Amino acid sequence: MSELILTTYDWVPRPPRGFVRDIRVRWALEEAGLPYRVETTPFRGRGARHLACQPFAQVPWLTDGDLSIFESGAILQYIGGVSDALMPLSLHGRIGVTEWLFAAVNSVEIASVPWSALASSPDPGNAPDWARWNGLFKSRLQRLETVLADCEWLAGAFSVADILMADVLRLPDSFGGLKDHPYCRAYVARATARPAFAKAHADQIAHFAAAD
Amino acid sequence: MSELILTTYDWVPRPPRGFVRDIRVRWALEEAGLPYRVETTPFRGRGARHLACQPFAQVPWLTDGDLSIFESGAILQYIGGVSDALMPLSLHGRIGVTEWLFAAVNSVEIASVPWSALASSPDPGNAPDWARWNGLFKSRLQRLETVLADCEWLAGAFSVADILMADVLRLPDSFGGLKDHPYCRAYVARATARPAFAKAHADQIAHFAAAD
Repeated sequence: MSELILTTYDWVPRPPRGFVRDIRVRWALEEAGLPYRVETTPFRGRGARHLACQPFAQVPWLTDGDLSIFESGAILQYIGGVSDALMPLSLHGRIGVTEWLFAAVNSVEIASVPWSALASSPDPGNAPDWARWNGLFKSRLQRLETVLADCEWLAGAFSVADILMADVLRLPDSFGGLKDHPYCRAYVARATARPAFAKAHADQIAHFAAAD
Repeated sequence: MSELILTTYDWVPRPPRGFVRDIRVRWALEEAGLPYRVETTPFRGRGARHLACQPFAQVPWLTDGDLSIFESGAILQYIGGVSDALMPLSLHGRIGVTEWLFAAVNSVEIASVPWSALASSPDPGNAPDWARWNGLFKSRLQRLETVLADCEWLAGAFSVADILMADVLRLPDSFGGLKDHPYCRAYVARATARPAFAKAHADQIAHFAAAD
């Protein structure tokens, strides 16, 4: 493995600070004890170099020598592959982590993103689409609640899948979206109480604050 | 490898037929030339056995001996791992496929699902959230358009990432959502012109029709 380089924006406005997706990668690298360096790409003016590394002009991406990886789910799976602290070596263990990585983004985040967009707008309960998106998100939370009533972490031991799922849930949690789902809330609290999350979060806040 | 078993619903109403996500797995298995058997789970009344295999009470799941996998993205990655027709063996090749698997669900489908929900409702242009979701989806399509202007398939050769991305785009395409993005439309047309897609699609239609 070469020196790991995490690329994120040089600056973002205040509201998303603490929620920019580089936090998922910082968190995993801190959990794994892997050293890394942070580089930046302009938030304003996303040019050809950015698109070559991240075709949707988002962040983050991770480079390891001549390997450059985008999509936080793919990066987390890669880190899980180089650190058995975050993904088991067995086929069954790896599959278990992988299905929950996809579930975090494709079964939960696909419902939590529209919910959070509406919940953060004025008077969400009267938005015409509220019933649809609130219903979908709450139905997914209800399923997850059943799972989390019976386990501490999604795939046996703590893994990159928990980093992704907990981070996906942090945004709706910040708008009160988990209040009727105590096991989901406790899961997010348990995950974010880990020292590696605290370090990753403080580092992201400090990174963007330094650019003000 | 044991006998592969794909589980889907025993029946669904007419509108989603041809779009139920088991088609992704059927398509990949047809491309790979892997034999499989189809089993069913009740569409009405999703019980404990269903939740044990798919915690969100969705379909499909795939079993291979004592391995049971949910989430279509995770299943496709698994099939890619057992068939080098659908994912290269090299680390760089596997990472390339993996980042596009996650991009399909987390960067494109997260935008196409709200867009398709609104586009299929009456008078979508006057829905208060139309500008938000139309803007997000079109911005993602515009990025993908740039990528697809320069390549036939997303990760070099045809792979499971193309099965996932093309299937994600089929739904908005059916509502005219790709009409301003000719490279995206041509990509979906090229992918769905493959004999393995035609077989998978016909098999899904026949499966649900037989239960009427």
